[in-house]
Amino acid sequence: MNNTLDSKIYWGESEINAAYDKAKFQEFQQQSPEQIKQACTDKNGRLKHIIRAEHFDLEFLETICETAKAARRVAKLEDKYLKSLLTGKSVLNYFAQESSRTFLSFSTAQAHLGMRREDVRDIKTSSQMKGEPEKDSLRTHSSYFNSIVCRHPSDVYDLFAIWALSLSDRSVSFVNAGSGSKEHPTQGILDYYTFRESHKEGLDGKSFAFVGDALRGRTIHSNMKILTLHQDITIYSVAPKHLQLDEETETYLQQKGTKLIKVTDGLKDVVPLIDGAIYMTRIQDEHDKDKGKQKYDPKFIFEEEMLNQMRPGAILTHPLPKREEIAPGIDYYKKDPRIMLWRAVRNGMWTRAATFAYLFGVDDQIRGQYERIKKAAATP
Amino acid sequence: MNNTLDSKIYWGESEINAAYDKAKFQEFQQQSPEQIKQACTDKNGRLKHIIRAEHFDLEFLETICETAKAARRVAKLEDKYLKSLLTGKSVLNYFAQESSRTFLSFSTAQAHLGMRREDVRDIKTSSQMKGEPEKDSLRTHSSYFNSIVCRHPSDVYDLFAIWALSLSDRSVSFVNAGSGSKEHPTQGILDYYTFRESHKEGLDGKSFAFVGDALRGRTIHSNMKILTLHQDITIYSVAPKHLQLDEETETYLQQKGTKLIKVTDGLKDVVPLIDGAIYMTRIQDEHDKDKGKQKYDPKFIFEEEMLNQMRPGAILTHPLPKREEIAPGIDYYKKDPRIMLWRAVRNGMWTRAATFAYLFGVDDQIRGQYERIKKAAATP
Amino acid sequence: MNNTLDSKIYWGESEINAAYDKAKFQEFQQQSPEQIKQACTDKNGRLKHIIRAEHFDLEFLETICETAKAARRVAKLEDKYLKSLLTGKSVLNYFAQESSRTFLSFSTAQAHLGMRREDVRDIKTSSQMKGEPEKDSLRTHSSYFNSIVCRHPSDVYDLFAIWALSLSDRSVSFVNAGSGSKEHPTQGILDYYTFRESHKEGLDGKSFAFVGDALRGRTIHSNMKILTLHQDITIYSVAPKHLQLDEETETYLQQKGTKLIKVTDGLKDVVPLIDGAIYMTRIQDEHDKDKGKQKYDPKFIFEEEMLNQMRPGAILTHPLPKREEIAPGIDYYKKDPRIMLWRAVRNGMWTRAATFAYLFGVDDQIRGQYERIKKAAATP
Repeated sequence: MNNTLDSKIYWGESEINAAYDKAKFQEFQQQSPEQIKQACTDKNGRLKHIIRAEHFDLEFLETICETAKAARRVAKLEDKYLKSLLTGKSVLNYFAQESSRTFLSFSTAQAHLGMRREDVRDIKTSSQMKGEPEKDSLRTHSSYFNSIVCRHPSDVYDLFAIWALSLSDRSVSFVNAGSGSKEHPTQGILDYYTFRESHKEGLDGKSFAFVGDALRGRTIHSNMKILTLHQDITIYSVAPKHLQLDEETETYLQQKGTKLIKVTDGLKDVVPLIDGAIYMTRIQDEHDKDKGKQKYDPKFIFEEEMLNQMRPGAILTHPLPKREEIAPGIDYYKKDPRIMLWRAVRNGMWTRAATFAYLFGVDDQIRGQYERIKKAAATP
Repeated sequence: MNNTLDSKIYWGESEINAAYDKAKFQEFQQQSPEQIKQACTDKNGRLKHIIRAEHFDLEFLETICETAKAARRVAKLEDKYLKSLLTGKSVLNYFAQESSRTFLSFSTAQAHLGMRREDVRDIKTSSQMKGEPEKDSLRTHSSYFNSIVCRHPSDVYDLFAIWALSLSDRSVSFVNAGSGSKEHPTQGILDYYTFRESHKEGLDGKSFAFVGDALRGRTIHSNMKILTLHQDITIYSVAPKHLQLDEETETYLQQKGTKLIKVTDGLKDVVPLIDGAIYMTRIQDEHDKDKGKQKYDPKFIFEEEMLNQMRPGAILTHPLPKREEIAPGIDYYKKDPRIMLWRAVRNGMWTRAATFAYLFGVDDQIRGQYERIKKAAATP
Repeated sequence: MNNTLDSKIYWGESEINAAYDKAKFQEFQQQSPEQIKQACTDKNGRLKHIIRAEHFDLEFLETICETAKAARRVAKLEDKYLKSLLTGKSVLNYFAQESSRTFLSFSTAQAHLGMRREDVRDIKTSSQMKGEPEKDSLRTHSSYFNSIVCRHPSDVYDLFAIWALSLSDRSVSFVNAGSGSKEHPTQGILDYYTFRESHKEGLDGKSFAFVGDALRGRTIHSNMKILTLHQDITIYSVAPKHLQLDEETETYLQQKGTKLIKVTDGLKDVVPLIDGAIYMTRIQDEHDKDKGKQKYDPKFIFEEEMLNQMRPGAILTHPLPKREEIAPGIDYYKKDPRIMLWRAVRNGMWTRAATFAYLFGVDDQIRGQYERIKKAAATP
């Protein structure tokens, strides 16, 4: 995948210049996964770009989750402290693919830390209209900011971005907010946080079902890669044949020794087997030519009665937006602790706040403040 | 009206889920006006959602107007104090119908109180593109905010919104910034403020002319409902037959005992009768299929010479945007105290600031601060 | 030019009202250049509107450049001080023409001074959809702000804006962020800053080449007008015949006694003659009907080997976005001090910050703070 050029990136109007730039980018892409991970890591071993779930380790995820929990509490008790932490830092939220949901999650997260935020949400308002290659746009935009968040339809936009940013000598952190059908690492972090908070006993040995569009569900790919970090995980990929897991992710799971079971005949028999989480997804048909025409197979719907077949401790979640894959009645259960769909939305905001705190090195301050608050509360 | 389903709300791609949700919403809609008002009121009897002019009483309007006046003065003298009041509160301005005017009025008002603001102004950038029902979008968006402002083409979006928000157990205030052709309550408040400031002697016994599109002018509907709170009001509905007042509003006026006179043959003879306000409106032809084709009848234009026929104390205003319904020369009168069109724009900003101060319970602080400033200025 | 009415301004749906307004505007336009400059100047002789490069003098430019340098340093050392200067001031960034680049430059600049910012970036979301003349929209928008920045396709939008704002008695500063093909004065300031910083010895006597679309390149027009303020400048207008300098600018240069040499056969022989700056531009074909079809003549490309033919001290720059007019390899020179394209982007942000500091009278405070910082650093 990484060595092909993606037609969803705009290389500008000049064929000569485009060819030149493409050749340079291809060189960059030919680096090994280890080299790419290194390009995303600073000299102290901390990630400076968040582009792929495969760059995460348990220590990083632990740091983010603990920071998210701390930030949530500090915001409630000492909102002004939290908002004072990153007033000197700035971010551009660049959404070339429509998503008010993820945009608002990022922007709110950044606001909680006091960051200066700008956005580009409508590609039509950008310089591409004047024939500017995206490489130049990104470099120009980066001039004004300490970090950039991008959502983009191209599968390789994450690599493209860190390549384009490397042409400048300014240091700008890049966060992938969803690139094509491949990766959505911050969604991976938020789901991990939800799993972890729901299973205080730990995730080792647990089973998970990923249901729906395993082929193109970028959240599924990011989630599975993260789960390989745990011991004895069993992953059920529950999808019709033509939407079954892509080869790249399957190979990744094999290499990491994570057990994968593909189920193509429906969700029903899988529900009672899961003690971790049932993770529903919609068909990603914006990638299809017959968008909206593809019918969701009812055998893969989470029906209301399946709540009764769930194992104790197991949860139900969905990255949203959802369509018909979860039975409509589920939305009207107000207090069922197993239905995590909506709470996950807020988890996303806090894990994203934690991610920016981490990128700008104030995550320890947040955790420290939380410890102080807890101690003060415990002192009589 | 309230028991029909509005096709302008998007219920998602799945017919089964849409039918389920619609049934639930219809149940909610079947509540009595009193029940709906109660759903918009907190346990202390204060409004927590601003959706309909019929929920306002004179005490509420008095509170908002006095707070608006105070906020205006405090902003001039102690801007930082005002901006410190709601730094911990946040709002989403969600405009599914184009309006930079109302958007900027709200956003500026909120900024004066220090609120964190985000916006969605282009429906194309939203999750609806992925087949998500608006019920889910609203619920997701509400996760990040303490309040939501919406403008929407649907006549029942206000009810829809408080229904959708009731599915979550988070407490989020909703403000209707214009729903379909029915209601625009914050415009009603701003016009009331303008009327009140222009008539220090009080509004009881005054006459008002509402001119133009009485059928679909949501600002007209909100204004008339508010005026019924006063004694001995006479309302002239000045519009051609096919744009005369809708039955619902007419019945409302009757029930409240407010005198209504329908005039269908032009504005000319009405002008000398009005001692309150002449309220001009444009034809709301965005609701028509032959948008822009319908000619405004010249008999309903406010002509320059009508300024000479106005009674002392009467004012001329318009909710804007205007087209031909006010003669062009009027815009070039710079200091005529009767022409309130443009001053009303700023009144709108301050009454909206007051509305948010009220919703988050800091309205008394603003009025208190103003009293302190006045006292300090009076002390030698 | 200034006495014709521009069809790119929207005058509303009513022919009668449009005719009336147009007549009023034409009257305003018929003022002499001196009268127009005076309308842009306050009683102390300071500019209050930034609409045309011809309004600048060397003292003004010196003030902006020194303030920009100071702001840049103060931001690094005392960011909070800088951000406290204009918290009471507000601005609307109104971009009726797409440009995320210039928008972000302005918005970031304003944020550095702590200004409250709002934006309208998508004309479709505006009141024009309801038939409102732009004169009214501008006046409404101005109600909420202390200043307005506009980019607009009309050549006379700058005059139109200060005319429309003059109908109100509120004092609002207007900044032209690019009007049609005529003027882009803040780009002129930023380029001047880049030239000046690259030539500490001064710009008198220097030669400059402006390459590409001299006919419609509004940045070229603004730049040339500014350079006439210096002694013994030689300007090369390097463009194919059909894109050569417009008559208005040529006449302006003649009147100011600035030497102009038109070169129509390519850039090659000009490079070794330039000791100031080589200023490349793209073909502004958004003004053409055959947009994107017009091929850039290779003789006007800045080729990589031309770097070797440049005179010592000369620099290469471009207002961006660029297409094929600069050879692709140039983007990969990371440290060449002559290639100023990307550094100019950041210069733009700081000169825009300086411009707002000047408009709101805090420019001297910024320079003063910088002097204090320097002194403190020098004290042992």
